[in-house]
Amino acid sequence: MLEDQSTQLTPISKYGEFGLIKHLTENFSFKNESTEISVGDDAAVINPDGKKVVISTDTLAEGVHFNLGYVPLKHLGYKAVVVNLSDIAAMNAVPTQILVSLAVSNRFPVEALEEIYLGISLACKKYKVDLVGGDTTSSQAGLVLTITAIGLENSENIVQRNGAKANDLLVVTGDLGGAYTGLQILEREHAVFLADPNMQPEMEGYDYILERQLKPEARTDIKTILEDLDIKPTSMIDISDGLASEILHLSEKSQVGFHVYENKLPLDPLTITTANELNLNPTMCALNGGEDYELLFTISPADFEKIKNNPDFSIIGHAVDLEQGNFLVASGSNELVALTAQGWKAF
Amino acid sequence: MLEDQSTQLTPISKYGEFGLIKHLTENFSFKNESTEISVGDDAAVINPDGKKVVISTDTLAEGVHFNLGYVPLKHLGYKAVVVNLSDIAAMNAVPTQILVSLAVSNRFPVEALEEIYLGISLACKKYKVDLVGGDTTSSQAGLVLTITAIGLENSENIVQRNGAKANDLLVVTGDLGGAYTGLQILEREHAVFLADPNMQPEMEGYDYILERQLKPEARTDIKTILEDLDIKPTSMIDISDGLASEILHLSEKSQVGFHVYENKLPLDPLTITTANELNLNPTMCALNGGEDYELLFTISPADFEKIKNNPDFSIIGHAVDLEQGNFLVASGSNELVALTAQGWKAF
Repeated sequence: MLEDQSTQLTPISKYGEFGLIKHLTENFSFKNESTEISVGDDAAVINPDGKKVVISTDTLAEGVHFNLGYVPLKHLGYKAVVVNLSDIAAMNAVPTQILVSLAVSNRFPVEALEEIYLGISLACKKYKVDLVGGDTTSSQAGLVLTITAIGLENSENIVQRNGAKANDLLVVTGDLGGAYTGLQILEREHAVFLADPNMQPEMEGYDYILERQLKPEARTDIKTILEDLDIKPTSMIDISDGLASEILHLSEKSQVGFHVYENKLPLDPLTITTANELNLNPTMCALNGGEDYELLFTISPADFEKIKNNPDFSIIGHAVDLEQGNFLVASGSNELVALTAQGWKAF
Repeated sequence: MLEDQSTQLTPISKYGEFGLIKHLTENFSFKNESTEISVGDDAAVINPDGKKVVISTDTLAEGVHFNLGYVPLKHLGYKAVVVNLSDIAAMNAVPTQILVSLAVSNRFPVEALEEIYLGISLACKKYKVDLVGGDTTSSQAGLVLTITAIGLENSENIVQRNGAKANDLLVVTGDLGGAYTGLQILEREHAVFLADPNMQPEMEGYDYILERQLKPEARTDIKTILEDLDIKPTSMIDISDGLASEILHLSEKSQVGFHVYENKLPLDPLTITTANELNLNPTMCALNGGEDYELLFTISPADFEKIKNNPDFSIIGHAVDLEQGNFLVASGSNELVALTAQGWKAF
């Protein structure tokens, strides 16, 4: 995948550090008035214009968060931006700028970095955020991509993890488990390919879940939808490590428990059939799969009527007193199953 | 160096990702009113209180920027913070917060990460900045440490690279070339150690230049000193890649040339004697060595009297019209030698 096997590819050393950053970032344009000084000085300068600054950073490491055997570099760049914007959206803030730090071994030619920056550029355009800084350096091995995302927001709009009260409704956007089942398909077909490079991968029919894994989107649209509905969440988090893990974070920070109903979990039909095909429990894919980048939030029960038939949202449970714990109410049996954080095994 | 060779060390897997971040950051306290929300939510929230936000990110990669054969992990953590704060100081802003992203292979035990965070903590205390976010993940190999630094500053105080005018004086803080000669000593003694592990390294007498390399400081003090002198630089940059490279940056951004006088370059006597011992040209160490993290700036000639005898500063040259180019005026001969950017070979 664009590794340096051809003499027609350009070694990174051709550009040098400054030339390389300039080359990779010269086609980025700016969409935000808050961007005052960008790439090319010691630091970027942002004008918050009376707003609070929301800031988050997240790293994707080769062999841990992605496998270049089946993740196209352009998608990697796009996804690295998305996962960071998702954190800003989870604070109910509007993302405005990013900084990109890239450490790559010199087995990557300039063209590989161009692909990554093309993906970053596409995400910047789609989400109207400005690339304002960062650096590119070599590494001993592999590729490590760290992005810092900045958002600006009026203080009264910011939503933390700690505001849920007992009886609040637990709501999730979109559907869950797709990114995880998509990953299983990618890994299955990659294993087949490694065993016999002449085998064609069987990806047909899996488009939706493959896209959920390879090109996820950040739910920056939810903020406006909720404002139009006149709803301010009492707590919010994004789903990067899996629904169960995120529920436990809200529980810990808000000091409430949650009861979640298995039959309310939103799963795409393709996620269910693929999970069954792979002998995976679809509910477990939704609970522990992760990487869906949907938003999970709580609202006051008084807001129920405003949201109940909205196709953007699924009410999946409610908050209870902390002592009642965090449980999944199983379909059919109504058995209570304790929620545990499987999370993402990054180590 | 604290790699996992003893059964008494703690594998990172013991903590899991969330537990690890909590463990590493729980002893950090806050010094800035602008820090509103810190580690533990989807993102940090900063209150700029009417000021502009200055932000920069920088990566240190094992085997490229440091060699763990002779760089103690605590010093690495400290230095990673310093190099980022130096960028904020170079904008004439006050650093207030940092975010830390650490990618490490699982050959490192928890105790190694604790050492890195101890260094980060020491730097946070010394420079009164708050650790407000970040993540820790594994990598395929080696250690990659990315820090994002944030500063807040009134708009009128911010100094960019682009304001130098012909006839402005070129000024540098501290002394130059020490970090580079210190690195040469470390590499020499490390090579001796590798050839014969029973040899004792000969570090005695090199303290100052070793400290310049292993534990540099950011010149966050300069902002106040210049304010007390009633001087606002017309352009500024920090010296990370070497004086010559930074001068060329100021030249490009300000569209002026610079003439620099070799006999005005501030070098510590130990830098000179060590360079001579190693058969290096001391002037070349100052021009191209890098990692000094001193500030290089221009001031109006009208400010000459305010600064001329100040021991914090050396006036090393002046700006000329762009067409006159960037030259070193050699001692003795007064020969003009074109400045070229050797910079840091990160690739």
